[in-house]
Amino acid sequence: MTKRDTTSAISALQGLLGDRLSTGESILDIHGRDEAYSAPALPDAVAFPESTEEVSQIMKICSQYHVPVVPFGIGTSLEGQVIPIHGGISVDTSRMNKIIEVHQSDLDVVVQPGVSRTQLNDELRASGLMFTVDPGADATLGGMAATRASGTNTVRYGTMRENVLALEVVLPDGTIIETGSRARKSSAGYDLTHLFVGSEGTLGIITKLTVRLFGQPDTILAATCAYETVDDAVNTVIMAIQMGIPMARIELLDEVQMKGMNIFNPELNLPEKPHLFLEFHGSEDGVKEQVELFKSVGEEFGVSGFEWATKTEDRNRLWNARHNAYYAGKSLRKGCQGVVTDCCVPISALAECISRTKELIEQSGLIAPIVGHVGDGNFHLLILIDPNDQNELARAKSLASDANRVALSFGGTVTGEHGVGTGKKKYMLEEHGDAYALMATLKRAIDPENIMNPGKIVEIN
Amino acid sequence: MTKRDTTSAISALQGLLGDRLSTGESILDIHGRDEAYSAPALPDAVAFPESTEEVSQIMKICSQYHVPVVPFGIGTSLEGQVIPIHGGISVDTSRMNKIIEVHQSDLDVVVQPGVSRTQLNDELRASGLMFTVDPGADATLGGMAATRASGTNTVRYGTMRENVLALEVVLPDGTIIETGSRARKSSAGYDLTHLFVGSEGTLGIITKLTVRLFGQPDTILAATCAYETVDDAVNTVIMAIQMGIPMARIELLDEVQMKGMNIFNPELNLPEKPHLFLEFHGSEDGVKEQVELFKSVGEEFGVSGFEWATKTEDRNRLWNARHNAYYAGKSLRKGCQGVVTDCCVPISALAECISRTKELIEQSGLIAPIVGHVGDGNFHLLILIDPNDQNELARAKSLASDANRVALSFGGTVTGEHGVGTGKKKYMLEEHGDAYALMATLKRAIDPENIMNPGKIVEIN
Repeated sequence: MTKRDTTSAISALQGLLGDRLSTGESILDIHGRDEAYSAPALPDAVAFPESTEEVSQIMKICSQYHVPVVPFGIGTSLEGQVIPIHGGISVDTSRMNKIIEVHQSDLDVVVQPGVSRTQLNDELRASGLMFTVDPGADATLGGMAATRASGTNTVRYGTMRENVLALEVVLPDGTIIETGSRARKSSAGYDLTHLFVGSEGTLGIITKLTVRLFGQPDTILAATCAYETVDDAVNTVIMAIQMGIPMARIELLDEVQMKGMNIFNPELNLPEKPHLFLEFHGSEDGVKEQVELFKSVGEEFGVSGFEWATKTEDRNRLWNARHNAYYAGKSLRKGCQGVVTDCCVPISALAECISRTKELIEQSGLIAPIVGHVGDGNFHLLILIDPNDQNELARAKSLASDANRVALSFGGTVTGEHGVGTGKKKYMLEEHGDAYALMATLKRAIDPENIMNPGKIVEIN
Repeated sequence: MTKRDTTSAISALQGLLGDRLSTGESILDIHGRDEAYSAPALPDAVAFPESTEEVSQIMKICSQYHVPVVPFGIGTSLEGQVIPIHGGISVDTSRMNKIIEVHQSDLDVVVQPGVSRTQLNDELRASGLMFTVDPGADATLGGMAATRASGTNTVRYGTMRENVLALEVVLPDGTIIETGSRARKSSAGYDLTHLFVGSEGTLGIITKLTVRLFGQPDTILAATCAYETVDDAVNTVIMAIQMGIPMARIELLDEVQMKGMNIFNPELNLPEKPHLFLEFHGSEDGVKEQVELFKSVGEEFGVSGFEWATKTEDRNRLWNARHNAYYAGKSLRKGCQGVVTDCCVPISALAECISRTKELIEQSGLIAPIVGHVGDGNFHLLILIDPNDQNELARAKSLASDANRVALSFGGTVTGEHGVGTGKKKYMLEEHGDAYALMATLKRAIDPENIMNPGKIVEIN
């Protein structure tokens, strides 16, 4: 990027966007950090486009002046994805937040990237349809697609990988492409949709998404239940999945996390033992059948204390508490920061992987509650540290690194749903081997000038 | 490919493979055609590797001498994918047909690419698990992944896109990569698995696959039912999908196709009206519930003549008949050849798209039965022609082309599951617009010498 000319780019962008191109300090500051423990870095300016055409013009200008572009949804990434580590233009999609078309008969919806998951579901409520991917944060759909996000419903309804049907993307040179159609399947050449899902803004900017919807189930029943050990809880999950019980949600919270849940949500008042939080979707009879099956599996592993949430408000309270697990975990230690891991392993290895990980936590002397989308084999440590204690930070990083290597040794991944950003780059060669070089080949081919979110996922310079 | 040296390549390959490198006329002939109406072209030689390492050596040799490589499974492609239109080496994976590891607890299996779908399911029968993707032919899993194939179960269980979890691939320079892990989800960088699924051997050779399995359902019930019009049948499907009835199979056969079915399978003896062939999977009670729901929807559209196949042998007879629909259709006209289309549209557009297509058939004066995986919005015309009549061939091509453009006008694709090969290349620019150029960019980046199945999907010279 020897010919980079930020000043000319900003001036051209001001011509294009007027006061929707900001260099105000507080605006830069908001666009220089994300939700986790990554060092902040400021963009040179923030653009607020209102249309695909404007995004295309922004890309053309930035391409002409060799200025980095970092797409920004709502800033809830956890691996530094939205942080402009090389400066440049943060492209904030918050003004592109329209729900364009709901296709009731096709069970899909076309949205702009700035639409958030709760905004979409609020809009859909009356239609009888729902969008199912639910990361902890109220993220934007553009950000969720870029990160290949998932959440608590994945075990039944899939991640963003399964739920994005097609994208409109602006390429680094400003070209606007459509990566697919609304047809439910296609074998018409390379799968460009999946190439951009999970690409974290390093190959282009997502400007429109077609995502799958599901019918709201007739009957929804949520529950919590307790176990004596994490092992028993996980073994219940493994057997339930093997038996094909179509669980909508099956979430693990270990005894440490449950302590935090009770502090943060006093109304929960649950025993401080490992828990599963469950949800069943189906017809009335179907749900009854699932519950009976699940109970019989649970009993084999000493389940106790089922609490049923039949009313909508009880259910919402339960899942709000689960979505706030990050803050609940942090309430275990005043003023702490969290270092979060995101391992995912084949489910057959989950019990052993978590048990080895708990030994590592023990050895580290740190507090690290565990929550997991265990139906997918995915679990998080939330390692609590004093942000001013460099020694603790080093120990936390070392614990995270050990935990990641355990997951890799079980044939897993170091990131089930948070993405790579800058935080997980150091594991990529170990995880992917020679395939990591192919990722660099793709990046180089699509973004030869390396202006799209440079330094994330893979280096090409 | 100015420096192409086929003679030296063949000599080096003979050194590597001995008599597993064949230049025998009948072997070349088998590897010079596929199952549909595409002009044959012979390879210079056929290689029969037995290991990934050998495939890698083959690629290194062919790369060194700039000789094209065409992966070959069992030769059932329908768009000319396996035909070596530029000669070179056909790499036949039939000796790589081992089932490597069944992971009962993880519901997945690791196989070599030469394993066929019935071989895999025969092997799995005792385990209580099943592999669900079932194209008409008994294709190999490598071929099915390369083509992004689907079949009659897709509406419930997905296509190869949803069922391939990870691949081992040999790149054009001989590098062996793994595109993912057995973890059920991952956001660890670019989605290489999906890049190779559907790439038709143009980016590398698939040498190992990890695919999803499902538990065999407790109860399976199949049925056929008749309608007065195709419209009524399709509208039943649309409503059943919208209501979320988890149909395992829902297949349309129009009145013309039914005539062929009765000729080819005299024991069927069904009325020559548009039919749906159905299958329900679930618990005993679950299936009952689905059937009641489906019947009530069907009645709204004048369904008649339900025939239930409760016994396994009746069910197998029914689905064998459906899998042989291609031959049944051809039995409508002695000695004919079939020109097959593969349109897929959003399901809301399906009734209108099929009705417009039937008008086109009428206008053409040709016989063209329709069968469709209508739960996915996917349907095929089988246009029957006298292979010696150039005028008929031209009219059939013109009909296919008109039908494809109708599907595109409804926001669909010209190929739901058969792939592009050479046959569908001419529609790709129209279907993908500027995204088609990005496909060429990817091809150029991964296979700059254009030795991997050149001339398929996209041209880069």
